[in-house]
Amino acid sequence: MSILIRDALLDGRVESVYIEGDRIREIGKKIEADTVIDGKNMALLPGLVNVHTHAAMTLFRSYADDMKLQDWLQTKIWPAEAKLRPEDIYWGTKLACLEMIKSGTTCFNDMYFHMDMAAKAVQEMGLRAVLSEGFIDMRDREASEESLKKTRAVTEKIAAMRCTRIVPAWGPHAVYTVSQESLRALKQLSDETGYLLHMHLSETQKEVEECKAETGKSPAKYLEDLGFLSDRCVMAHGVWLDSTEIAALARTGAKVVHNPVSNMKLAVGKAMPYAELRRAGVPLSLGTDGAASNNSLDMFQTLKFASLLHKFASNDQTAAPTKEIWEMGTIGGAKALGLDCGRVEEGALADLILVDLRRAFMVPNHDLYSNLVYAASGDCVDTLICDGKVLMMNRQVEGEEEILEKASSAALDVTRRASHG
Amino acid sequence: MSILIRDALLDGRVESVYIEGDRIREIGKKIEADTVIDGKNMALLPGLVNVHTHAAMTLFRSYADDMKLQDWLQTKIWPAEAKLRPEDIYWGTKLACLEMIKSGTTCFNDMYFHMDMAAKAVQEMGLRAVLSEGFIDMRDREASEESLKKTRAVTEKIAAMRCTRIVPAWGPHAVYTVSQESLRALKQLSDETGYLLHMHLSETQKEVEECKAETGKSPAKYLEDLGFLSDRCVMAHGVWLDSTEIAALARTGAKVVHNPVSNMKLAVGKAMPYAELRRAGVPLSLGTDGAASNNSLDMFQTLKFASLLHKFASNDQTAAPTKEIWEMGTIGGAKALGLDCGRVEEGALADLILVDLRRAFMVPNHDLYSNLVYAASGDCVDTLICDGKVLMMNRQVEGEEEILEKASSAALDVTRRASHG
Repeated sequence: MSILIRDALLDGRVESVYIEGDRIREIGKKIEADTVIDGKNMALLPGLVNVHTHAAMTLFRSYADDMKLQDWLQTKIWPAEAKLRPEDIYWGTKLACLEMIKSGTTCFNDMYFHMDMAAKAVQEMGLRAVLSEGFIDMRDREASEESLKKTRAVTEKIAAMRCTRIVPAWGPHAVYTVSQESLRALKQLSDETGYLLHMHLSETQKEVEECKAETGKSPAKYLEDLGFLSDRCVMAHGVWLDSTEIAALARTGAKVVHNPVSNMKLAVGKAMPYAELRRAGVPLSLGTDGAASNNSLDMFQTLKFASLLHKFASNDQTAAPTKEIWEMGTIGGAKALGLDCGRVEEGALADLILVDLRRAFMVPNHDLYSNLVYAASGDCVDTLICDGKVLMMNRQVEGEEEILEKASSAALDVTRRASHG
Repeated sequence: MSILIRDALLDGRVESVYIEGDRIREIGKKIEADTVIDGKNMALLPGLVNVHTHAAMTLFRSYADDMKLQDWLQTKIWPAEAKLRPEDIYWGTKLACLEMIKSGTTCFNDMYFHMDMAAKAVQEMGLRAVLSEGFIDMRDREASEESLKKTRAVTEKIAAMRCTRIVPAWGPHAVYTVSQESLRALKQLSDETGYLLHMHLSETQKEVEECKAETGKSPAKYLEDLGFLSDRCVMAHGVWLDSTEIAALARTGAKVVHNPVSNMKLAVGKAMPYAELRRAGVPLSLGTDGAASNNSLDMFQTLKFASLLHKFASNDQTAAPTKEIWEMGTIGGAKALGLDCGRVEEGALADLILVDLRRAFMVPNHDLYSNLVYAASGDCVDTLICDGKVLMMNRQVEGEEEILEKASSAALDVTRRASHG
């Protein structure tokens, strides 16, 4: 199967791009293919990479907002999560994939529960994903063994699918929910398998203070001293990182995923130290976080929030400029996940979007990246290709109606079960 | 001409709404009309009201970003504005109207130049607008007389159109660009005509410090002592207002328009004192500001930024909750402008939108307002009615292609003229 995208705007030139199998094979030469897509008035760009999600939390979108964090977790989110069944994860992840496809995301890094069901959803939807079973033992030895067994079983199940678009990872939730023993065990599993470690780090001040009180160390230092940090670590948030921690991340090659919308909505108290992380050379990427704390999976929103948050927080109009932010949302994400997507070049994976330049908010086009970061929303994406297959054309996605219906039912059912105790 | 919207979701119930002329006449009784619109799977809501725009600045969208404020103004925006011709304003405003229609805004409060041309554009596009010729005399006596003559002429021209959707207003730019004499004269014109005064206030710290150095007073106190403040004042920004100024605004009935996206992008240094203004009873509404400093006119983005900015700035997840923000974007705007829109009730102006609930980001629908504020973007709007006329149905707007083409050409031309000096 081959695809030719004809006459699209690529880096300011009109080009044609030929795709065969899962890769971009040629730019500017071929004139025919099995499928020919007219790229006129479209910009050809890499698909966005969402490096921190809890996809199935789409089920809890609009379920509980404007609440104090602990109240929100304890009275709403955790009781509802306790009622989640495997098939809920399936439909919630399908809905998330649909929303991501419709807003230009071709790849995501997901941590949640029943991840074999998430894998099934991703396999069917055609996206690329790194999937980690969320690991929580609440620092209890018995729970640790049980959880390790379970996480290994789920991870093996995902690996056994042998879907080239789906890569398993290990998902220690956070320093305050995972014991030292489990962190060591998961690090060892990562060494053995080569799979990434996807973890929350330094999201709230409380987390940092508790870690210091217990271990005498800030979270990233604690992890470094445990021997946990490496270039296979993808750490979400990093809001409260201090300079010693930033140096530890830079030294070990660990990555940080910035989640500006979630950080603002959950009022985590400050902006991630963007300039310091960048100066230290810590690889940065972007994520939406789950739909309960955003509540959108549209990465275009995240691009704008990221840039504006850092302009605002640093009192500097030149901070976090468009090209930098766009790269964090694409190639930065690909690099964080060790995947060969996030760029439109011969030989790269064919994870691509066509952005419709004939939308009111994309006109005039003095600067495409400015329009993408500051003016666009995800619905400017007309066509999405992942792994060399067309998942959306002319904004049509196969099976959309059924997903909306089933996910909506699943969402109402699980929250009904939760409110009935 | 009558319209019946059948079986839409209104305040949680399925209702039918009958429109005749420019008003909502009946809810829930009529069964036929000249035009019948199927509201199934749609939420019927008031159109959004954008209370601070410079509509024709769409021409400068993506023209200059990520620059220091003074550099941006002096080397980019002002030279380009100096080259604006009346027909540029016409096409820029048409583009802005198109973008607003496509994202659910039915009414806006605009200040810019050649506003008779903006009025022509608004009249053709079918939206409701309050239009003020931007008044700047740089506190020069001669310029003051000239500017007053011009502003009166333009305002009379707009009034003479006798378009019920278009209301003229007076547009003193700011305390640092308008002389005391002109402020007094414009206040008197407002008293005589009953037209609103649309003005920037307390956007940057520089403005406040300069005003204090010159007059010994903060900007709002200076205006109050001039006798300028009244309930006909619609003041944009209010970022740096102190408690004495907030009391002055509350005392006089002056309104404040919050522009969170512009404030963050232009890094004005702090968040508008939202809680204090609300406690004092100052009427609040929302605006996008111009497309050069946002760069989108999508009010759904502004809803989310407003809520998240105040959660973040106050370190409180419960701040600026959804219903409060939604009301600022609708009925709050209508009240600021003294217009009988912003609500779906019998007798109110028929300025309405139908929001498509079958979009991935609107599912599940545990809470409609949460989805509208946190998850939606403007493209969830399927149908828009203004003044009892359908301006968009099924996302189709008449004349869209021509507007995109002409506005795009005008934008490239004016910036080319500017760069050639």
